[in-house]
Amino acid sequence: MISVRPVVQILGWLTCWVGGMLLVPAVTDYFVSDQEWHTFLGAALLAFFAGTALVLSTWQGRAETLNFRQAFLLIVMGWLVVTLLGAIPFVGIGLSFTDSVFETMSGVTTTGSTVLTDLDDLPPGILLWRAVLQWVGGIGIIAVAVLILPLLRIGGMQMFKIESSGSQQDIADLTWKTLPLLFVIYIGLTALCMLAYRVLGMSFFDATTHAMTTLSTGGYSNYDASFGHFHSMPLQWAGTLFMICGAIPFFLFVRATLGNVRALVTDQQVLGFLSFLAIASILMAFWLVEHKDVGYLEALTLTSSNITSVVTTTGYASDDYTAWGHGAVGAFLVLMFVGGCSGSTSGAIKIYRYQVLWIFVRAHIRMLFSPHRVITLRYNGRELGRDVPMSVLAFLAVFIATIAAFTLVLSMMDLDIVTAYSASVTAITNVGPGMGHIIGPAGNFQPLPDSAKWVLVVAMLAGRLEVLALLVLFERDFWIE
Amino acid sequence: MISVRPVVQILGWLTCWVGGMLLVPAVTDYFVSDQEWHTFLGAALLAFFAGTALVLSTWQGRAETLNFRQAFLLIVMGWLVVTLLGAIPFVGIGLSFTDSVFETMSGVTTTGSTVLTDLDDLPPGILLWRAVLQWVGGIGIIAVAVLILPLLRIGGMQMFKIESSGSQQDIADLTWKTLPLLFVIYIGLTALCMLAYRVLGMSFFDATTHAMTTLSTGGYSNYDASFGHFHSMPLQWAGTLFMICGAIPFFLFVRATLGNVRALVTDQQVLGFLSFLAIASILMAFWLVEHKDVGYLEALTLTSSNITSVVTTTGYASDDYTAWGHGAVGAFLVLMFVGGCSGSTSGAIKIYRYQVLWIFVRAHIRMLFSPHRVITLRYNGRELGRDVPMSVLAFLAVFIATIAAFTLVLSMMDLDIVTAYSASVTAITNVGPGMGHIIGPAGNFQPLPDSAKWVLVVAMLAGRLEVLALLVLFERDFWIE
Repeated sequence: MISVRPVVQILGWLTCWVGGMLLVPAVTDYFVSDQEWHTFLGAALLAFFAGTALVLSTWQGRAETLNFRQAFLLIVMGWLVVTLLGAIPFVGIGLSFTDSVFETMSGVTTTGSTVLTDLDDLPPGILLWRAVLQWVGGIGIIAVAVLILPLLRIGGMQMFKIESSGSQQDIADLTWKTLPLLFVIYIGLTALCMLAYRVLGMSFFDATTHAMTTLSTGGYSNYDASFGHFHSMPLQWAGTLFMICGAIPFFLFVRATLGNVRALVTDQQVLGFLSFLAIASILMAFWLVEHKDVGYLEALTLTSSNITSVVTTTGYASDDYTAWGHGAVGAFLVLMFVGGCSGSTSGAIKIYRYQVLWIFVRAHIRMLFSPHRVITLRYNGRELGRDVPMSVLAFLAVFIATIAAFTLVLSMMDLDIVTAYSASVTAITNVGPGMGHIIGPAGNFQPLPDSAKWVLVVAMLAGRLEVLALLVLFERDFWIE
Repeated sequence: MISVRPVVQILGWLTCWVGGMLLVPAVTDYFVSDQEWHTFLGAALLAFFAGTALVLSTWQGRAETLNFRQAFLLIVMGWLVVTLLGAIPFVGIGLSFTDSVFETMSGVTTTGSTVLTDLDDLPPGILLWRAVLQWVGGIGIIAVAVLILPLLRIGGMQMFKIESSGSQQDIADLTWKTLPLLFVIYIGLTALCMLAYRVLGMSFFDATTHAMTTLSTGGYSNYDASFGHFHSMPLQWAGTLFMICGAIPFFLFVRATLGNVRALVTDQQVLGFLSFLAIASILMAFWLVEHKDVGYLEALTLTSSNITSVVTTTGYASDDYTAWGHGAVGAFLVLMFVGGCSGSTSGAIKIYRYQVLWIFVRAHIRMLFSPHRVITLRYNGRELGRDVPMSVLAFLAVFIATIAAFTLVLSMMDLDIVTAYSASVTAITNVGPGMGHIIGPAGNFQPLPDSAKWVLVVAMLAGRLEVLALLVLFERDFWIE
């Protein structure tokens, strides 16, 4: 039987922390003399109370190391707890429970699909809270993806285990050394992004919230027109730059901070990611000049900002790219599957998995016609263990099956096939906007039936946790052994 | 360097054989005193001449065993040669070269997508020729999938290697023993199907052609309304039964013929396949009764015949199932990926791959939370070698990537996303009809631009050869080593 006590204790601390976060919009709203500050304050007090209760009731005096099962349980429960607490302010401004949970889950999974319309008229506290949710979700997934998922060997991430002698104590030490650095880097990049946005013309408030949703590759904006609201090429380029930062492996930033900048600029995944973005943006810019009345510079600005937005799974739209033509719809639907790098805030399949698949499949094809050849697989200068391609492939199979299952369920709820399929994809890849006239980049998830919203809540969580981390909980042996 | 001489020789024999096949519609058309018989006769003579020339120019007096590379080359060239020869009669009745090649490739890959309209008014010779192409393509893929692909270890098919002591001579003996049996069984089942269709009300001509396109899971019909033309429930059930026969592993029929009927009825793949069809049909029948004005029996007839048609990758439509509602569109789009059993005429991913994936992924998920567990994978009562899941997963990755690539290319040709995506899927899975108002089950591939038709010709061939068998030819080492 799995012991849940240490898991509950950490969830207690997490609850208190969310309480602290709730004070940010409370204070903001209070000083701009809006009426919503009491909702945030109430929610914060509730969180402090519940969190303290959880911590005290499970207190044993000493920190415990979690085992594999407890780690899985913690990750899933962590996202659920934050979502439930985070939804309170939305209920406070009059949203239905379903819509509140949808908006919050979309926030903490850094998806960025929204059910809110007329964003431009919402109180600043709630806009700030949406940004905070994504920002918290962003650092949450970075911590989990850098420190925990590699140990759990999710989807080939064992490659990115931080070196240690391997003892339990050593791993714990490394965790406590790395975690604060991750925080500092995340905060630092967010501050830089905010500065850039402010200098290039955003208001202080817009710069703050958009910096938070850029670095977390979340994509919530304060405007219905998303990033297109600002009509500014320099801002689009700044956004592109910082979305890329949010999709770079954060352990490489950690190493760079500790002096090893070379690791960052020679990493095979980072180079593959940047090359892909550059090539895709340039090719599509040539295509766009033919299909839309724009010059080369504007075309490249539009393609690079929107492609970066979708590939990093941010979900800002600086234009309604689905109106560019059928070719763009097809391209963006494929781009939604790409994803950024491992150990970042981005979702979807991710660059390293494509690279591993490419290396593996090419070797496999060669072995088909010369069966006795011995091929050593190498990635990033190191030999690739047999288990990595297996893990990546298992992830791929589960990922594709999950998308198919959710597509099926959503079309049974009477959504048309483009909406059902793209909603499923965009939720599981944590991109944000879908395709079609309802949930496309110019649309909104509000018109979907409640049942579909709940399905998408599950899909977003599954996608954020690389599907497998959620699936283990459905294995009977997980609970009884 | 690869030696092509023995490959060319076999292609010569194949060309002669196609010449023989061309005599069938020639004789038919002659006796119903139509004008098209000379086209067929001319094409037949051309084939005999070319085939004989190829055989003689490569004659060495003794049969040679092919090596791996020659086998790959033979398979790909075989389909190409038959397609080019088979297209001649279509050019003869006035179709463009593009349309002729599309229709023939769709035939010999047993896909069943058509560019011909007003089928009901076409000369019988050409209708018969379409059926013959699918029937020949069917026995072709059975022979390749039973005898060659398992040796080449394509996509996990090594599991289905016919037992032998393993010496080259032994394999050759087995091949020559099994091949005639496969033929006899295929002809026998086609005859049975024809008889059933005739007894249940089809004309002799319709019964013959539809039996040929049923057993080959091809799906060409003599009518624009496809199987729906006959408005007969018994005929739909007969069609369902024989489509299932076409999608059962033919080596199990061989074993059953040799006395081992037990192997057929206890095979894990066959049982999984039949259960899947039954459950899907029944569930969808309940759904259909709610959405269409039909009773339970008619609903079950419609769902089982159309689901069997799509899952076995036949592509008959006994009704326009995309008009049943959004739920049906989503369901059929997912069903297109399923496929029948290995070693049959059906395409797509196929049942055994899902079963292997399921077994592998479940074990993988268990190992995530208890890493030190040792799990033995078993399939069909035998231990599953490590290479089988790897092969299946490599196939899956390539299959999905191929669909994405073709979708992208087709949308760049300005097809809307539903048409581009479903055309790509239906071509690669060899199903036949797509989705949407252009290429849906009530539609036709005629309106697509020529460029898109050529792309689909490649896609159908890739799908028929399990993608990998085509991809090996694009590996540089294949040619130079």
